[in-house]
Amino acid sequence: MALDTVMVEELPPPGSPDIEIARAASMRPIIDLAQDRLDIPAEALVPYGHHKAKLSLDYIASKADAPKGKLVLVTAVTPTPAGEGKTTTSVGLNDGLNRIGLSAMVCLREPSLGPCFGMKGGAAGGGRAQVLPMEDINLHFNGDFHAITAAHSLLAAILDNHLQWGNEQNIDPRRIVWRRVVDMNDRALRNINVGLGGVAHGVPRETGFDITVASEIMAILCLSTDIADLQRRLGNIIVARRHDKTAVTARDLEADGAMAVLLKDALQPNLVQSIEHNPAFIHGGPFANIAHGCNSVMATKAALSLCDVVVTEAGFGADLGAEKFLDIKCRQSGLRPDAVVLVATIRALKMQGGVAKAELGTSDPAAVERGAMNLRRHIENLQKFGISPIVALNHFVLDSDEEIAVVMQVCNELGARCTIAKHWAEGGEGAEDLASAVKEQLEQGSPEIKLLYEDDAPLTEKVETVAREIYRAADVSFSAAALRSIKEFTKLGYGHLPVCIAKTQYSFSTDPAAVGAPEGHTLEVREARLSAGAGFVVMVCGDIMTMPGLPKRPAALDIGLNDDGDIVGLA
Amino acid sequence: MALDTVMVEELPPPGSPDIEIARAASMRPIIDLAQDRLDIPAEALVPYGHHKAKLSLDYIASKADAPKGKLVLVTAVTPTPAGEGKTTTSVGLNDGLNRIGLSAMVCLREPSLGPCFGMKGGAAGGGRAQVLPMEDINLHFNGDFHAITAAHSLLAAILDNHLQWGNEQNIDPRRIVWRRVVDMNDRALRNINVGLGGVAHGVPRETGFDITVASEIMAILCLSTDIADLQRRLGNIIVARRHDKTAVTARDLEADGAMAVLLKDALQPNLVQSIEHNPAFIHGGPFANIAHGCNSVMATKAALSLCDVVVTEAGFGADLGAEKFLDIKCRQSGLRPDAVVLVATIRALKMQGGVAKAELGTSDPAAVERGAMNLRRHIENLQKFGISPIVALNHFVLDSDEEIAVVMQVCNELGARCTIAKHWAEGGEGAEDLASAVKEQLEQGSPEIKLLYEDDAPLTEKVETVAREIYRAADVSFSAAALRSIKEFTKLGYGHLPVCIAKTQYSFSTDPAAVGAPEGHTLEVREARLSAGAGFVVMVCGDIMTMPGLPKRPAALDIGLNDDGDIVGLA
Repeated sequence: MALDTVMVEELPPPGSPDIEIARAASMRPIIDLAQDRLDIPAEALVPYGHHKAKLSLDYIASKADAPKGKLVLVTAVTPTPAGEGKTTTSVGLNDGLNRIGLSAMVCLREPSLGPCFGMKGGAAGGGRAQVLPMEDINLHFNGDFHAITAAHSLLAAILDNHLQWGNEQNIDPRRIVWRRVVDMNDRALRNINVGLGGVAHGVPRETGFDITVASEIMAILCLSTDIADLQRRLGNIIVARRHDKTAVTARDLEADGAMAVLLKDALQPNLVQSIEHNPAFIHGGPFANIAHGCNSVMATKAALSLCDVVVTEAGFGADLGAEKFLDIKCRQSGLRPDAVVLVATIRALKMQGGVAKAELGTSDPAAVERGAMNLRRHIENLQKFGISPIVALNHFVLDSDEEIAVVMQVCNELGARCTIAKHWAEGGEGAEDLASAVKEQLEQGSPEIKLLYEDDAPLTEKVETVAREIYRAADVSFSAAALRSIKEFTKLGYGHLPVCIAKTQYSFSTDPAAVGAPEGHTLEVREARLSAGAGFVVMVCGDIMTMPGLPKRPAALDIGLNDDGDIVGLA
Repeated sequence: MALDTVMVEELPPPGSPDIEIARAASMRPIIDLAQDRLDIPAEALVPYGHHKAKLSLDYIASKADAPKGKLVLVTAVTPTPAGEGKTTTSVGLNDGLNRIGLSAMVCLREPSLGPCFGMKGGAAGGGRAQVLPMEDINLHFNGDFHAITAAHSLLAAILDNHLQWGNEQNIDPRRIVWRRVVDMNDRALRNINVGLGGVAHGVPRETGFDITVASEIMAILCLSTDIADLQRRLGNIIVARRHDKTAVTARDLEADGAMAVLLKDALQPNLVQSIEHNPAFIHGGPFANIAHGCNSVMATKAALSLCDVVVTEAGFGADLGAEKFLDIKCRQSGLRPDAVVLVATIRALKMQGGVAKAELGTSDPAAVERGAMNLRRHIENLQKFGISPIVALNHFVLDSDEEIAVVMQVCNELGARCTIAKHWAEGGEGAEDLASAVKEQLEQGSPEIKLLYEDDAPLTEKVETVAREIYRAADVSFSAAALRSIKEFTKLGYGHLPVCIAKTQYSFSTDPAAVGAPEGHTLEVREARLSAGAGFVVMVCGDIMTMPGLPKRPAALDIGLNDDGDIVGLA
């Protein structure tokens, strides 16, 4: 396995910019890699250049009865500005699994253009654990997000056009919930008035733009199991209410067919490779607050029919990401993880223990001990799903032995295996211990996963269950508006849907400053939003941002082409 | 040549929906076709699936000193709702040229999603003269328009972000000229207020969206000669004025580098094939009113280095399209047409002669005679550029011999060769006469092209020259605002730019109802807009539409997927 691995010593040293490491790495032709490693015939692939390809839906369907591999979920402690390296660990683990002789691949989310030009930079792993071609993946990739933006825009245009030409559906313009999207951080579009300028130019009303990853269509694409399911879900999208309060769907506006046409290529998973030439699907990228934050069901299921082990990740920390992975993606798709890796870093735990980012360079085992409350909480939470996570301590050069010993001790107390992973500096070789731990766990058999709540529990009870079991809230308070909506959704027949809790990712509570492992707080549900196409009810707790802004000096200003035509400044 | 032509009899009969003919046609792998027909090595191509590819900029640069082919411009009489078939004729002529033994290719514009979902349907030729894969070309194609939308959106977001964070450039928010774009017909976005909702959500101001094809970035992409020229032009875009009235450019906002990064793949021409397996570049698609309406200079120049003959088209009728092709695209790029084909139909001439669309089925030689005024005018206009056009009478089944005789007679009087072209029904075979006429003309040598005006003529004089020579206006009246802008642009150093006259395409005058060959009217210039990056000054005459609306029943409502997953309803 992986005999064609690039020699790590050929690459720029650890700490070099990701883009320099990525550019120095060789890539195999993706058609050859797919054939050798996954037994995929060339005709099942749609090439996008020589190093990216989409896998045809017909081929995926043909593998429906193939033996299925094991699924490994990578999740993390609560995010901090120090970074935890969940994507990096997923890529490194996959490289490690391939190094120790397993046939494995990784399934990741696609990065969004907005954050790439804002603050975050790229999102294709880091160091020697990256997926390639890094520049393409971080920019237009294979056009999936553009297709989602186009389908979303088409529905918006058809809706406003319907108002313009007589409004046969009797839509109440004050009760339109379908906004517009663009894949850009553009705060000036959050709240806008449209249809101005007179009778020829539409019906004036208030609306706004979200970023594309917040589109319900993104969530739909990621939960659909085939093209018919995609179109059915698109048709189910509720865009507005009529004057009699009944729901108007995309199907009522006859928009679902053209939307499906725009999305049919985007539904095909994108195959790429890591620096070590191991296969990866990168497909879909729903926001982890207003949506479920996982790559597509299409990619995960396809990967399971192609490999022995599939590594996938969920957004944010385990409280938000793993919970939604399990209660939404797994519930809808029938998927279940066979093992779970919980990523932690010494730096993140120190921040959870109250250390400021500027002070992270100093060894501080006591702070790690304090911050390890957060790690404990996530381990205990995962145990409630029937999961015994393997803790991956994603190693940074400044981590001290004393600090590492603290984490080992905490894991030991809770019966969780802990391994140190050095994939960022060393590639797959640095993740061999982690990979071996995962392999052993998979050999011991799969856990009996318990979802947190039953479908037929009332929506309010579902929220209460998550709040109690995962966030350790003492109480849940619903606003009058939220309760009204929940009642309405239940009456309309959506009471059986899972809940998608939108809250800050920085704390178990709704206060982003409450680091560590707060408990006894009240979860305040301000608003409930129905995603009838995606199949969940979003419970909005506190402010959630569906359109980010740019910082004072956006990353875009430093991105450009050098004299050789190579991209510079893409972190 | 073209030994691999599909037999026409295998295809559905003439009159079948374009999409059915397109789907029944076989396609060659584009890499093979490029190798056999154009001698392009596989490594110079970036495949997008098996039947589309982008041609690398490095390869194009390597052919800079290759011998150049001859350029044939296809233009048309004044457009009518009956349709003239300019794209269809361009595709058919290329098939015909290849059939008679020439190495030829066609360069076309890319269709826009907006009109495709609105009224127009697809724009990839028709009948047996189509480019393939028709569905892809009409939908996302290779992502060029999405890249343009993204680059345009990024500049808009950076601009509003600049206002939000202290406005160091001292931009006057009332004098921002950079709007936003989306590739959709969405009238409700024509006039909007943004930045509402309070201090965290931007600076409130009036703005709006145009359709992507109206973006200055589209014009820039189509006029750029390499990536450095592209970035230079992007930097030159003027987005606003400061409080002291000086111009703020994209370069001032440091946005040009990231915009160039977003556009670097889009700058590569897209190679596809016709139904008869002849090569075609389809690249770029600027609006023919607010911009110059031709495919990219990159594609045309690359094609000329690959083939003996290159067929290309210009938007709308010859008064608008050919004039801009010559005075903008040719002026900037140094290209010159070696022959010009003027497309006319009996149906269009009858409408120019006053016949209603519903009455077109009846033979009416007298109406053709009246409408032929329009054809005469275009022939005479082209002769002013030093061009003797070949008239291609694009044949429809209901054309009578008497009607055809009228057109022949008119052409004869003006010394213009006229050929009947039946490519729509018969493919390349039906265009052999036209192809032979073009071949003979090319063998006789190239015309000495005279551009209409010199660079150093004042901007007002440039408009007056076009108005007098081409539109046959008796007078030009400039609004006070237009004169003020022209004075300002001249003072800023843009007086040497060509003018791009934005007026109705339905008449030589500014009254769309004035069919035939009106003269003696006044051209009213309402507004002047500077496209400093594209390199022209737009003179707005009458209302111009930069964001179309959808009709009461948009084409989108009938577009969908059938049970086999095939697209239906794409005309």
